[in-house]
Amino acid sequence: MGVAIRELVREDRPAVHGLLDASGAFTAEEMQVALEVFDEGVDGGTDGPYAHFGAEVEGIVCGYVAFGRTPMTEATWHLYWICTHPRVWRSGVGRALQQYAEEFVRKHGGRSLVLETSGQPGYARVHKFYRQAGYEEVGRIRDYYKRGDDCVLYCKVL
Amino acid sequence: MGVAIRELVREDRPAVHGLLDASGAFTAEEMQVALEVFDEGVDGGTDGPYAHFGAEVEGIVCGYVAFGRTPMTEATWHLYWICTHPRVWRSGVGRALQQYAEEFVRKHGGRSLVLETSGQPGYARVHKFYRQAGYEEVGRIRDYYKRGDDCVLYCKVL
Repeated sequence: MGVAIRELVREDRPAVHGLLDASGAFTAEEMQVALEVFDEGVDGGTDGPYAHFGAEVEGIVCGYVAFGRTPMTEATWHLYWICTHPRVWRSGVGRALQQYAEEFVRKHGGRSLVLETSGQPGYARVHKFYRQAGYEEVGRIRDYYKRGDDCVLYCKVL
Repeated sequence: MGVAIRELVREDRPAVHGLLDASGAFTAEEMQVALEVFDEGVDGGTDGPYAHFGAEVEGIVCGYVAFGRTPMTEATWHLYWICTHPRVWRSGVGRALQQYAEEFVRKHGGRSLVLETSGQPGYARVHKFYRQAGYEEVGRIRDYYKRGDDCVLYCKVL
């Protein structure tokens, strides 16, 4: 399966909305935030606070990644999320997006990528995904998202 | 020394700018971010993303605190910073602001306060300040702000 990665543009908004919805991983508030971040990001280009890249399979955007420079740091970036359509799960689309983001960050002088994710059992797949890619757990905030739902922080030195 | 705490308004901007400058704790970029956060915060009121309260001593604002609800969480808030004028250091102004913020968060349904600070030796006073107030270290991201300058995460359950 050929995966082509390209920068997302304003016209990709419906596709992004569809992906967030189809993934089933986002609450209504999270989807709203993700779309606000998209709207701000596509305005700013890759120098802006939020870079957005999509993965196309057979010409259809079936996943995207959002990341950006961390304000008030010299060379730290945040990986906000990788979202992929269930129909391409386990086919390497998420991995391609993660690797693309890392390469982009490296090329732009970034030295590390930080991400936050939920510590709930349903996120075991996500933890495995990032651990396999070399991310190390650097913190955990109990009951962060809600009671029983910790925030787990990961960092990868690029 | 009597300390009166009140919500900051747009007209307090020059005072806030002066405090950030006088404290000597902020880089130019950090001051810019702090003022952007102030501008956004005083528009939104206490329901907005950033609440700002100032401490007056003899009618002059000599310290302020910025905090707010953490998006996509049920009851987590972030304490962004407490900034006080060197002339009131060690006089309880910072402590009064921290306690005020905690009480405010509690009253608004918040269950925990998270904060990030530098792990550099020069910040030992800051770490002591928060540890004494019951904040626990929950994470550390190496070389986060710059090489040799870690981010230390603290959390207090209210």
